[in-house]
Amino acid sequence: MEHEKWTKSEKAIARRAFKQAYERECEAIADEARRLAEGIVGPEDMWQLHDFLTQQRGETDEKYDYRYSVLVFVFARLIGEGWLKEDEIAGLGEDKLRKIRLMVQMMNE
Amino acid sequence: MEHEKWTKSEKAIARRAFKQAYERECEAIADEARRLAEGIVGPEDMWQLHDFLTQQRGETDEKYDYRYSVLVFVFARLIGEGWLKEDEIAGLGEDKLRKIRLMVQMMNE
Repeated sequence: MEHEKWTKSEKAIARRAFKQAYERECEAIADEARRLAEGIVGPEDMWQLHDFLTQQRGETDEKYDYRYSVLVFVFARLIGEGWLKEDEIAGLGEDKLRKIRLMVQMMNE
Repeated sequence: MEHEKWTKSEKAIARRAFKQAYERECEAIADEARRLAEGIVGPEDMWQLHDFLTQQRGETDEKYDYRYSVLVFVFARLIGEGWLKEDEIAGLGEDKLRKIRLMVQMMNE
């Protein structure tokens, strides 16, 4: 797949959508972290909280890759996982939206 | 320093004291983890909690070294840092207690 060109306006939309999805997913991770922290009884529970955060940090670092060469894949994944809604990337070029929709469809098949 | 022999009774005392100090220090770490978890506002705060736990886990893994060859050093450090009280290792041989007291003194100088 050839890399798409991103206009200045598309970049602004992408940046905002990316940030929103990231904060949304982090809020869900934080909810779980708070729940685990409140439930700490012994050392094992605390290291379990640590393991959970280590895993989530690794996964989000890998997932939230803001390079324009991979961004349509990233957005498709975020929509498929429910962290982003399609209307939040409205305004991207139709070619990009088409690819994203197609990938979301493939993820759901 | 030649390695001390540990009697069965000393080992039982040591094991209990070691566990108590570990749980005490972990409870203090857990208190701070809960405080940090409650204060999470954005992603940065959450990764700060993760960094904190990573650091504490590394430090406690290193510090709580239950090998009889190093245990008098470990106990001296735990007493010096306030995680263990001297009366919690009462019953260890006088040679060990003397070394431990001496090291605690040196730490406080």
